[in-house]
Amino acid sequence: MEERKYDVVVLGGGPGGYGGAIRAAIKGLRVCLVERDRMGGTCLNWGCFPTKCLLRDAQLFSEVRESQWFEGELKINFQKVIERKDNVINSLIQGIETVLLNRGVTILEGDGKFLGSRDVIVEKKDGSEVKLNAERFIIATGARLDFSPFTPDGERILTSRDALTLKKLPKSIAVIGCGRRGVEFGSFFRSLGCNVVLVEKSERILLQEDIEISHRLRRILVNMGIKVIVNGEAVGAEITSEGGVVLTLLTPKGENKIEVEKALIPGKRVGNTQNLGLELLGITTKDHFLEVNTKSETSVSGIYATGDVNGLGFFAHKALTEGISVVDHFTDNSLRINTLLIPRCTYTNPEIGSIGLTQMEAERREEEFTIGKFPMGASGRAATLNQTQGVMKIISGKKFGEILGVHILAPQATELISLASLAMRNELGIEELKATMYGHPTLSEAFFESALDIGGEAIHFLKGNVEG
Amino acid sequence: MEERKYDVVVLGGGPGGYGGAIRAAIKGLRVCLVERDRMGGTCLNWGCFPTKCLLRDAQLFSEVRESQWFEGELKINFQKVIERKDNVINSLIQGIETVLLNRGVTILEGDGKFLGSRDVIVEKKDGSEVKLNAERFIIATGARLDFSPFTPDGERILTSRDALTLKKLPKSIAVIGCGRRGVEFGSFFRSLGCNVVLVEKSERILLQEDIEISHRLRRILVNMGIKVIVNGEAVGAEITSEGGVVLTLLTPKGENKIEVEKALIPGKRVGNTQNLGLELLGITTKDHFLEVNTKSETSVSGIYATGDVNGLGFFAHKALTEGISVVDHFTDNSLRINTLLIPRCTYTNPEIGSIGLTQMEAERREEEFTIGKFPMGASGRAATLNQTQGVMKIISGKKFGEILGVHILAPQATELISLASLAMRNELGIEELKATMYGHPTLSEAFFESALDIGGEAIHFLKGNVEG
Repeated sequence: MEERKYDVVVLGGGPGGYGGAIRAAIKGLRVCLVERDRMGGTCLNWGCFPTKCLLRDAQLFSEVRESQWFEGELKINFQKVIERKDNVINSLIQGIETVLLNRGVTILEGDGKFLGSRDVIVEKKDGSEVKLNAERFIIATGARLDFSPFTPDGERILTSRDALTLKKLPKSIAVIGCGRRGVEFGSFFRSLGCNVVLVEKSERILLQEDIEISHRLRRILVNMGIKVIVNGEAVGAEITSEGGVVLTLLTPKGENKIEVEKALIPGKRVGNTQNLGLELLGITTKDHFLEVNTKSETSVSGIYATGDVNGLGFFAHKALTEGISVVDHFTDNSLRINTLLIPRCTYTNPEIGSIGLTQMEAERREEEFTIGKFPMGASGRAATLNQTQGVMKIISGKKFGEILGVHILAPQATELISLASLAMRNELGIEELKATMYGHPTLSEAFFESALDIGGEAIHFLKGNVEG
Repeated sequence: MEERKYDVVVLGGGPGGYGGAIRAAIKGLRVCLVERDRMGGTCLNWGCFPTKCLLRDAQLFSEVRESQWFEGELKINFQKVIERKDNVINSLIQGIETVLLNRGVTILEGDGKFLGSRDVIVEKKDGSEVKLNAERFIIATGARLDFSPFTPDGERILTSRDALTLKKLPKSIAVIGCGRRGVEFGSFFRSLGCNVVLVEKSERILLQEDIEISHRLRRILVNMGIKVIVNGEAVGAEITSEGGVVLTLLTPKGENKIEVEKALIPGKRVGNTQNLGLELLGITTKDHFLEVNTKSETSVSGIYATGDVNGLGFFAHKALTEGISVVDHFTDNSLRINTLLIPRCTYTNPEIGSIGLTQMEAERREEEFTIGKFPMGASGRAATLNQTQGVMKIISGKKFGEILGVHILAPQATELISLASLAMRNELGIEELKATMYGHPTLSEAFFESALDIGGEAIHFLKGNVEG
């Protein structure tokens, strides 16, 4: 059997994998990246990127329809929306591959399995095997979805992958589960004219977000014509003889049935840790996720786990920065990225960007806090963009003025939140936000106004004037 | 004659005026704001806001036309574009007035004139007069435009005000002067299908911007179908018998004539300092602009000048922060806004956001510097937005890694630049940009990648791969 020696072997080509591979190659290490499918992982193939392409087209479509100057009938060619998405994805995947190769990373197509703590055997597509020996391993094999109790059929009971490759816009769809992915899909389908029901088993959508943001987005979704059912647990999906789907919902008032053309079912993420030979190494897993320390290292020294497979959060940027940071840890060249301070991005219309503590989380602490807000209805830039729904909300420590959390529901919120991430990572507080000049008119001015609002000193907004 | 006493009297209701008035009222001072026309100044009535409304609609129109899924004929109703703009402006002006009144600012409609260093007389619309006595005065009377050598007729030879109130989209237009305003108007008219010629007397458009950004935008404008003439000085405009305009241009190759339906002429800003009674006070002016110290105070103690009228730059955010800072200076409650660190925003498609030194300015210094870049062609978020033209460029001190300048040509660049403004104001450098987590996919990641690129360590971009 062929044997090769590397400094680093990476299993999995998503952001947690390719980020580490590229960083290690930049640092002069010999790197091999093993991927059994297309490069890019869930993020590029089935997650962030495909959905963001679709959402952008849908947003453009709805913005035009809401524009007073729109004349003539604008029709959407659904097939072309899907095609554009595929083209963007293909070119981005090619981009990653080109960077990997030009940085000198060896790419192996196949499945990797540990033989020992310094050896992995890769079974290639053609059946041949290669043995890779390395000092360090990065496991970035991601997570898959467990769809129980549902049985997706790809036609009527859809997984998110199925939804991304639909040939035709359905007339109606039920989206089960109202986390980020759920509200994004709901928003997409509704914007194109589909009847959408969102079904959420807990008491509100986007349970991870600040309760105010969650309630505000719900109101916006309802105004778009989406039906939002909370406290409703979908326990079954049956296909009717007419080719529709009947969902059974358990609600506080009893059992409920709704009929739709298609149902998009959620999945519970499960770490891809099977068939990796981990038993042999004695690496511990929990719900199939790999347990790691703050350096993303597993219980076996030199073996790291980055991205979804470590179960610490399911964001591409978390995966990417973990991949980079792992290399910086073992090359002792730390970028000092704070991998715990993770911005949360939801690409609805308007978008959501948030970071740090929610108001509920702040209330659970001992220390006193204050809140500053600026409603987008008072933003001049939002008015020019014809997108005045939303709010910025900054939660700050009362004593020191440090930023505890920032919650933005606004156009471009997924970009605006980066400013908060920079501020919080570098310990800038409310005073520093106020001491900065922001372009006028911009949405970013909301940082200035929200920070001022903590002392009741906003310039373009007076509580009670605009819904705050 | 009626006499009133205030703590602060503000002359002029633009951002430099209302910003100071609101801030002073918040600080518990008795404030009177004198404005002879509509509240909001040039920014709201004839500058930032009206143009941003128009540009947004034009951008939406061109984005849709460039979308592969667009079917059917989308027509633009020019009159409605203008109407929407008017509605937005009216509601924003009303918003400012409401805040002023609710904060307890007295608004006087009329013209103010100094009688002494603590007295102003206001001639109201009805001819009656009021005498205002105050400890502090903020002169925020703005600037007007001198159109010589041209004579605008409102029909064919247009000022920017005329262009904002057109009833019909012209078939062709020449825009003279390629500063921010010029390229924005050119971009607007071209996006709606008008034939546009941009005429610039210096060697390149956007002379204030980094030369690379300027050249890149020029290429984009040319690709949109705009004709860009540089080194061409428009010295005359004659109306033809057919109702068109013939422009005479002086170029290095000699005299040139171009015929268009309409010409948009530039103006040279002149401070509005006449008829204010300033001679009486001995306040010095230069080219009609009021000279001020770093606290925006004129040569007479207690009399300040903010915004365009001090001639130190023509940005609404500069005016606004000066207005606020003036009050903080005399109430000794400084926000410490650095009013010299001014972000520059241009709302073309893609937008430009920049701050600090250009590459040419950095080259003139003694200290060594480095440049990091990230082309939008390598940005995944830009790909999903179908807007991959542009670049981010960070100029940094070689020794300390401090940020000297940031130049962004990209979608949402006017927002992205706020992050650079925050970083520079608070002395965060390249290491801090790298240590921050940005959402994936976002355009903001360009900060991470550009910062890494300084050391040749970008993750998603390899020099030579994508046009950098």
